[in-house]
Amino acid sequence: MSELRRNPLTGQWVIIAAERGGRPHERARPRSREAAPAFLESCPFCPGNEASTPPAFLEVADPATPGGWLVRGFPNRFAALGPDGRPADLSRGPLLKALPGIGAHDVIVESPSHNRFPADRTDDEMLTVLEAYRRRCMELAAQPSTAYVLAFKNHGEEAGTSLVHPHSQVIAAPLIPEDTRRSRQIARRHHARTGECLLCAVAEAEVNDGTRVVAQDERFVVFHPFASSRPAETWLVPLQHEPAFHQSNDDVLRAAAAALRRTLAQLRAGFGDPDFNYAIHSTADVGDDRASLHWYLQLLPRLTKAAGFELGSGIYINVAPPEETAATMRSASA
Amino acid sequence: MSELRRNPLTGQWVIIAAERGGRPHERARPRSREAAPAFLESCPFCPGNEASTPPAFLEVADPATPGGWLVRGFPNRFAALGPDGRPADLSRGPLLKALPGIGAHDVIVESPSHNRFPADRTDDEMLTVLEAYRRRCMELAAQPSTAYVLAFKNHGEEAGTSLVHPHSQVIAAPLIPEDTRRSRQIARRHHARTGECLLCAVAEAEVNDGTRVVAQDERFVVFHPFASSRPAETWLVPLQHEPAFHQSNDDVLRAAAAALRRTLAQLRAGFGDPDFNYAIHSTADVGDDRASLHWYLQLLPRLTKAAGFELGSGIYINVAPPEETAATMRSASA
Repeated sequence: MSELRRNPLTGQWVIIAAERGGRPHERARPRSREAAPAFLESCPFCPGNEASTPPAFLEVADPATPGGWLVRGFPNRFAALGPDGRPADLSRGPLLKALPGIGAHDVIVESPSHNRFPADRTDDEMLTVLEAYRRRCMELAAQPSTAYVLAFKNHGEEAGTSLVHPHSQVIAAPLIPEDTRRSRQIARRHHARTGECLLCAVAEAEVNDGTRVVAQDERFVVFHPFASSRPAETWLVPLQHEPAFHQSNDDVLRAAAAALRRTLAQLRAGFGDPDFNYAIHSTADVGDDRASLHWYLQLLPRLTKAAGFELGSGIYINVAPPEETAATMRSASA
Repeated sequence: MSELRRNPLTGQWVIIAAERGGRPHERARPRSREAAPAFLESCPFCPGNEASTPPAFLEVADPATPGGWLVRGFPNRFAALGPDGRPADLSRGPLLKALPGIGAHDVIVESPSHNRFPADRTDDEMLTVLEAYRRRCMELAAQPSTAYVLAFKNHGEEAGTSLVHPHSQVIAAPLIPEDTRRSRQIARRHHARTGECLLCAVAEAEVNDGTRVVAQDERFVVFHPFASSRPAETWLVPLQHEPAFHQSNDDVLRAAAAALRRTLAQLRAGFGDPDFNYAIHSTADVGDDRASLHWYLQLLPRLTKAAGFELGSGIYINVAPPEETAATMRSASA
């Protein structure tokens, strides 16, 4: 029999239905990544083609290559939100509410190499990427128009990108998304009732149970959450209370980089190099919620497709119990 | 500049970002559907192979073919929720809540013909399908274990199905999904404040504006909602107040069938036969909310992919303004 489980951070339910079978980890490896060269003349993100992107606001110099860079950030040429425009009410009546799309939409190129995918990197290379996220999130959080910042990555076509060269994105929005607002409210209520941070408590429960833990060190726990919505959904959670990603210190960031690098290598080894997304759930403005906010990185491999039931009900049917996928990840080489 | 718009039924925001471009309607037509024969020996849903599915609980006889059927319903062989088991608390502590997966997961085969896709049908054929949904939703809503019922369809691989033979599904769950619970609360509050049904008011606002209306008759309005989350997202809404789909009468169902058939033909003609999902947002138990509940059918073509921003924030970036996609649908032949 299947099981309905509730995500404690969102209140959303998922159906864990192992009998529905499917063997998601036996998917073929994507051809486009396999054949990728280290440099591609026609790639706008490869070194030498810097003029084909908007001017960079961030460039980490490569000490080994004169004029070279390790990580590069610039505005997305096809931005969903942009710096132009002033706050205004664009509503067409009381039920059709609208606002101008003010904010930012950035690209962070993660490596000069066209085929230096996360699982192949050193921890230092991964740290340089996370430092770029942190710096950009900090800058955007300080802008008066920003209410929300999200750093995220789309890896592969199934995950919504057609560009092979490793890159991430950062978006700043002028409002807090409804899902985020609700999660924040749930965490605030939990703290008011119990005096504890909800995600601190969830991480502790996962560590104590242990069956869904992929890896753990002094600073981070990596696990497949009890109410995983999709096969091999993975959370990276700081074990000490950390309200906002952009306020985390160097030690935390270094540990996050090592945990993320190792996790992505385990995902590739254990599940056949699937496409994936990850997003850093954090906050631009901690406000009065320092005790109840706690950032984490959510990794969503694209091993199955959401269908009509998920889109209609918001309840995900997950064919792979997290206890099993965590075991696969644990035994995969990092 | 892009625009942030709010879905009045859910409170979710979307970003309408035409500048991000993309030409979703120029996608290639899926090969598997194009080449599909009217009968396929190896298809478990084709006539003659009835023994390869679980026993049918619903079979609408075909008056023209002795022993033949028009529509057939049976339990899904790979059910996400099933009738076995008794209510129980499977939680692993206060934060890891779980329940047994009690409910139903049915398949409705929509036609004996392997390649009789919705856009090719007569209104009468479509009505027979909707009657099967209604009957099954009514039966499931009457079961004491049911708190929620969803009838939905996955059309094509991008929409999450690998079986070409036209079929739908009905799922009954023992709890109300969090998204549905919240939408119901929003509608209840709107009614308490204004005395009007929220979706009646939204449909009226869309009709009055007109720019996003695809089609309208005496009983139904079909439109691309102001805060469409994806290109060519389409809502079919009964113009008279109709709390629950399974309680709608024959006249409403007949009008819904004609509107749905026409809409799917326009989608195919206007957007290159995309894969799609649809779901009927309704309720199993109207309770005290008869004045504020109002069912509708939501059609989601799979013209673009959700990526990290959508998964992380819950805010969709829609590259096709609904005013433009509605115009494309209006001028497409039905």
